[in-house]
Amino acid sequence: MARLLYLQSGGPTAVLNGSAQGVLETARAQGVPVCAAANGLAGLLAGELYDCSSAPADSIRRLGWLPGASFGTSRHVLAAYDEAPEQWARLAQVVQQFDIGYVLLNGGNGSMETALRLGELAQRFDLPLLALGVPKTIDNDLEGTDFSPGFPSAAKYLASSLREVTHDMRSMGRGRVFIMETMGRHVGWLAAACSLAAGAGEPAPLVLLPEVAFDEARVLQAVQHRLQQDGYCAIAVAEGLRQADGRFVAQMHADAVYGHEQLGGAGAWLAQRLQQALGVHAHVALVDCQQRAAMHLASATDARLAYEAGAACVHWALAGQGGVMAGLQRQDDGWQAVPVPLAQVAGLERTVPAHFIADDGLSMTPAFTRYLQPLLQGEVAIPYIDGLPDYRVLSWPRL
Amino acid sequence: MARLLYLQSGGPTAVLNGSAQGVLETARAQGVPVCAAANGLAGLLAGELYDCSSAPADSIRRLGWLPGASFGTSRHVLAAYDEAPEQWARLAQVVQQFDIGYVLLNGGNGSMETALRLGELAQRFDLPLLALGVPKTIDNDLEGTDFSPGFPSAAKYLASSLREVTHDMRSMGRGRVFIMETMGRHVGWLAAACSLAAGAGEPAPLVLLPEVAFDEARVLQAVQHRLQQDGYCAIAVAEGLRQADGRFVAQMHADAVYGHEQLGGAGAWLAQRLQQALGVHAHVALVDCQQRAAMHLASATDARLAYEAGAACVHWALAGQGGVMAGLQRQDDGWQAVPVPLAQVAGLERTVPAHFIADDGLSMTPAFTRYLQPLLQGEVAIPYIDGLPDYRVLSWPRL
Repeated sequence: MARLLYLQSGGPTAVLNGSAQGVLETARAQGVPVCAAANGLAGLLAGELYDCSSAPADSIRRLGWLPGASFGTSRHVLAAYDEAPEQWARLAQVVQQFDIGYVLLNGGNGSMETALRLGELAQRFDLPLLALGVPKTIDNDLEGTDFSPGFPSAAKYLASSLREVTHDMRSMGRGRVFIMETMGRHVGWLAAACSLAAGAGEPAPLVLLPEVAFDEARVLQAVQHRLQQDGYCAIAVAEGLRQADGRFVAQMHADAVYGHEQLGGAGAWLAQRLQQALGVHAHVALVDCQQRAAMHLASATDARLAYEAGAACVHWALAGQGGVMAGLQRQDDGWQAVPVPLAQVAGLERTVPAHFIADDGLSMTPAFTRYLQPLLQGEVAIPYIDGLPDYRVLSWPRL
Repeated sequence: MARLLYLQSGGPTAVLNGSAQGVLETARAQGVPVCAAANGLAGLLAGELYDCSSAPADSIRRLGWLPGASFGTSRHVLAAYDEAPEQWARLAQVVQQFDIGYVLLNGGNGSMETALRLGELAQRFDLPLLALGVPKTIDNDLEGTDFSPGFPSAAKYLASSLREVTHDMRSMGRGRVFIMETMGRHVGWLAAACSLAAGAGEPAPLVLLPEVAFDEARVLQAVQHRLQQDGYCAIAVAEGLRQADGRFVAQMHADAVYGHEQLGGAGAWLAQRLQQALGVHAHVALVDCQQRAAMHLASATDARLAYEAGAACVHWALAGQGGVMAGLQRQDDGWQAVPVPLAQVAGLERTVPAHFIADDGLSMTPAFTRYLQPLLQGEVAIPYIDGLPDYRVLSWPRL
């Protein structure tokens, strides 16, 4: 019987390993031999695979609350055939060597392009191989799905954290500004999520998204207004905030400060502008990888659907359906995983749509809240050991 | 019957309001009228008090999981009499006006000095006033107590978060460096706590403390060694890291970059040095106020003892004992609140002792782990509403 191969690709999320658990448990229950590539596509090219059929069930269960990518991941994507014919040949060789009949790639929009190409590989080399995509990205920029697993957990963590800091800031008297820099190089979903930090009747944080060109006068005015009216001002800024001319503000900051490659910076840049223009001293938090690793505050809805997306792909693959990604379709009573052709999602990027952004360009509409709130529901109970989350490193037998 | 007055002072912690709950519930149970100053000492000087005897019991219960300082806090401390005689006279006036017989100041070492001075105020103005201190600070730098409430929760949050990011980093292949900048201007307890991020058999993060002068050659060598041996390197750096000449590295960074007051910076500075000296690109997280507000990952041990410290002070005050802080004394089966003379703690600063710091100056000893681990035990179950922590703003009736 042909093997099912699972790959992790791109940056991890809190629930990426949850999709792995869904794939592996479902494959094992179906009796199909299942393996995983070490370090994603890089490991596949090297023929480095883990034997997940002989792995302990307890290790697979532990994937359900382990942040990171337990099998290793990489940003390596597969180029078109004409650009990398020797890689395609090598992959065909590995597929044949290990008798791989199904490949499930767990990643974002770049990875879905690779999944599409693995389907082409099967055709070109006449291999009995089906390629499918399991969606994943905290950026929430995948097309063809209501949301990308990983995003709701990062959103829950960021909005909760900013809500906490807002209480801290409000306690300290008038004039406090707090800036939280979120990930999001090209899309502002994570910064937008911070808008839910405010409780009922409280002023929502200002949100600065890559989708809206930075308008300094408008931002300064809004900050001043908040300080006068509320006494404090919380701001969420996406790392990918840009000027109207398209330049990243973080890059401008890095050029001015370091003279080389940037190290974060949209938040620090904004703090500096507020200092210079308003004489206001702002606190800055740079959340960095914490936001994609914070399993301790994951959304139970996200964790469940990450698992189900993985499980659904196994069922489709074994039923002979390839070339699809598991899209999560929102319904009245939850979400349903549906097969979406990879060609409809590969390489595309879903930005925050205009109807989610309020007219001021600095806040989100009620429609956005209605979109996001259901995704945040529920908490995942994780085990603790010696007072800290029990995230032991899992080791996997080599194939 | 004379009133009991409660004040919050200095930066908030996750469990500061838990001490407030302990004070208010105990005072109400004892039948003593109880009030709280708006915005700490600043509000007391202005005669702005809240009537906590008529506040709803549900609001007081909700203090048990609300971050920040619900009554407002300030960094205002009371100067010696000779420096501010008019403030002392004003305070004596307010104490008499509101018939305050007991004042409980919830703060750090500067606040304990103010508490001591409030005792002197009673003598000088012949007021029947007892002043006591309820300990609080994430910095853990109070003398006279095994730990300061607030520190264990911040430590649990930081170590958990760094453990999560370490899994993320390890997933991404060789060569990753992650720097987490913690609070701690003069003491390194919070950066030291990050040493517990590693699980059994994993390499501990490097910790850079204000107590150990930055030795660049040693740090660079350690980072290179980790990258070679483990493939990744996690670093916790205190914001107050200094060069051997006593200068803050963050200030050096700020001088070079901004030419004015610093905006965080020890982590960014270190990343820049690693880039320049080793050609290594490091990720930097600047946790800022998140670490003192993260009630969602508070230590249940910390929350319980924050409450008990507040409750103990009420009992001592009503029994006629003033001039003391609630020290938390470690015993075989937990901690006991004991009265410690304010004069023995006021204005002092407890640094991380030498026997907790390993010989390399970059890691912690097993004795430190034995000290910290019991403080991290237990999680606090907080209620969620619409998928986010239920931290509604509480309003208090004015006296």
